[in-house]
Amino acid sequence: MAGEPGTVGELGEFDLIRAITARLPSGPDVVIGAGDDAAVVRANDGAVVASTDLLVEGRHFRRDWSEAYDVGRKAAAQSLADIAAMGAVPTALLVGLAAPPALPVAWVLSLADGLRDECQPVGASVAGGDVVRSDSLCIAVTAFGSLEGRAPVTRAGAQVGDVVAVAGRLGWAAAGYAILSRGFRSPRVLVEAHRRPSPPYAKGPQAATLGATAMIDVSDGLVQDLGHVAEASGVLIDLASGVFDVPEVFQDTARALSADPMTWVLGGGEDHALAACFPPETELPDGWLVVGRVREQGTAGGAAVLVDGEPYDGPAGWQTFS
Amino acid sequence: MAGEPGTVGELGEFDLIRAITARLPSGPDVVIGAGDDAAVVRANDGAVVASTDLLVEGRHFRRDWSEAYDVGRKAAAQSLADIAAMGAVPTALLVGLAAPPALPVAWVLSLADGLRDECQPVGASVAGGDVVRSDSLCIAVTAFGSLEGRAPVTRAGAQVGDVVAVAGRLGWAAAGYAILSRGFRSPRVLVEAHRRPSPPYAKGPQAATLGATAMIDVSDGLVQDLGHVAEASGVLIDLASGVFDVPEVFQDTARALSADPMTWVLGGGEDHALAACFPPETELPDGWLVVGRVREQGTAGGAAVLVDGEPYDGPAGWQTFS
Repeated sequence: MAGEPGTVGELGEFDLIRAITARLPSGPDVVIGAGDDAAVVRANDGAVVASTDLLVEGRHFRRDWSEAYDVGRKAAAQSLADIAAMGAVPTALLVGLAAPPALPVAWVLSLADGLRDECQPVGASVAGGDVVRSDSLCIAVTAFGSLEGRAPVTRAGAQVGDVVAVAGRLGWAAAGYAILSRGFRSPRVLVEAHRRPSPPYAKGPQAATLGATAMIDVSDGLVQDLGHVAEASGVLIDLASGVFDVPEVFQDTARALSADPMTWVLGGGEDHALAACFPPETELPDGWLVVGRVREQGTAGGAAVLVDGEPYDGPAGWQTFS
Repeated sequence: MAGEPGTVGELGEFDLIRAITARLPSGPDVVIGAGDDAAVVRANDGAVVASTDLLVEGRHFRRDWSEAYDVGRKAAAQSLADIAAMGAVPTALLVGLAAPPALPVAWVLSLADGLRDECQPVGASVAGGDVVRSDSLCIAVTAFGSLEGRAPVTRAGAQVGDVVAVAGRLGWAAAGYAILSRGFRSPRVLVEAHRRPSPPYAKGPQAATLGATAMIDVSDGLVQDLGHVAEASGVLIDLASGVFDVPEVFQDTARALSADPMTWVLGGGEDHALAACFPPETELPDGWLVVGRVREQGTAGGAAVLVDGEPYDGPAGWQTFS
C-alpha cells in the first residue's frame, strides 16, 4: 500500500473504482464486468436468481470486531447463501459501497479481496458496483445465480409428512457474537464463525436435485426462518431438540456466559445453514441432519413451529427493528 | 393510513415488508417475486443486464426538497437508465432500504409507489429487496434488463468519424438543483426535473438497433460521462456547443442566479439523458440531437473531450468524494 493515498476521499471516486476493480477478476459467467453502465451476466437457462442484502456498520458488522476482509467474506456469503437456498448456483455479485471520505483505502481493498475470495470457490465473481459518499458505512450486495434448468425451491412447497433437515452450522455465529458482546475474544473457533460464516453452498442445488419441497437459508434463526416456511406452505413444523449436535465448545462457552446453548442453535442466525423439507422417503446424503417433521397446521394453537411438540418460548431469531 | 403505526420501528420488519410488497405487483418478467430467499427473473436470451446504485439521504436526495414518491421515481430512474444505456429493456428491480426506526411508514410506502410507477411504463416491476435498520437513510437499487438478442452497447466501441448524439434532457436537473440550493422553489419545471428525471428509456434499445457503437447515460455530466466513452474507446470527442437547445427558462434562471446555463448543459447530471456514438451515415430518428464528432486521440494535448475544439474548462461533472 506504500505510496497510495490513505483515505477514499483523498483517492477520489474514479481512482478508487480503478483500484477496486483491479483486484476483482471476472469469472466465466460475466460477459461484461465492472466499468460500464451495467454488467452483463450469463443466464443460460433463461432465468436469473437474484437477491439483495444490505450490511450496515454497527448493526451487521463492527470494524473493531472484524477485519475488512472478513466483512467482505460475510457480505458475500449472506447473499450467496440466498442463491443456494433457491437451489441455484451463484454466478456473480454486484456491490454498492456507501463510504465516509475518511475510510482508509486499504480497508476498501481488503473488503474487495474478501468479496472476491468468498465468490471464487463457488465459481462466481464481482461483476460491478457503485461507490458513493455517505456519513455511515453501508454495503449493498446483490447476488445472481443459475438454476441450471432446475425448478426453484421456494419456501411454499412443504408437505405434511415431509422431513425437515439442516445442512451447515447452527448457532456458531450467535455464540461468537455473545462472546464478543461480553468483551471476550475466545474460543476463537466461535468468534471466527461470527466473523466469517461458512454456508454449505453446494447443499442448495443438491437439495433441489434430491426433490426438496421447500428451502430457506437460516439467516435470522432456525425457529423464525422455519416459521416463514411453515407460513408460506400452510403447515406446521415440529423440531426435535435432542437431535441437534451441540459441540462441547458450545457447552463450555454457554456455561462461562451463563447462557443456554440451545438458544444459539434454535434462535441464532448468520451461519447461513440451509434448512429444507424433503419427502419422507428421500435418502439424504452426508451433511444433512434430520431435525423435524412437517405436520398439519392448527394442531398447536396457531404456532407455526414447535420444539418437541410445544410452542418455543426462547428467542426465535433476529428482527431488524427490534 | 389511519390506524397504521407511524414509524417503521413501531411496525417492525416483517409487517413493513408485507405492507411494501402489497403495493408492488409483479410484472411479466418476474417468475418469483418478493417473499422468498431470492427472486427469479426471466432472461430469455441467455443473459441478464444488471446495474446497482446507491442513494444516500443528504447526498442524493433531501427529504425537505423531495417527496418520498419522487425519491422512489428518481431511485428507479437512475438504475433503469443504466439498463437502457446498454441497449437493453428493463425487466425488474431489487431494492434495499436502510432506514432509521423513526422513519414514517407512510414515507416508505410512498417511496415504494414511486419505484413501482417509474418501472411500470417500461414493463418492469420490483421483484424483491431487503429492509434493515440504520442510523441514516440509504436506498440501494439493482435494475435488471434484457437485450432481447441484441449485442450490448458498451462505452468502448466509438470509432473515429462517428457522430455523437444525445437523447433526453441535459442540465434540467442541475438547474433545478441550483434553484433549490439558493433557497428558491421555481421555475417549477426545473425544480421538478431535479426531483424526478425523465430518462428516454426507449432510446437505448433504439440506439442499439440503429447500430450505436458506444453509449452511456449522462448521470454525472455530459463532458465527464463522454470522457468515459472517449477513454474506453481510445478516441477524442469534440462537442459543438452551438447545437444544444438552451430553453428560455434556462436563460432566465441563469440570469437570475448569475450562472452560465451552458455549465448546466455540459456539466449537469441526473437527467439521465443517453449519449451515443453512431456511424456517420446513420439516419437518426426524432429525439436524437447530433452534438459532436469522434476524432483521433492525442490531437489536443491529452484531453478526452473538447468543446468547440478546445479543452473544456467548466465543471465537467459530479464526483462523489469531491
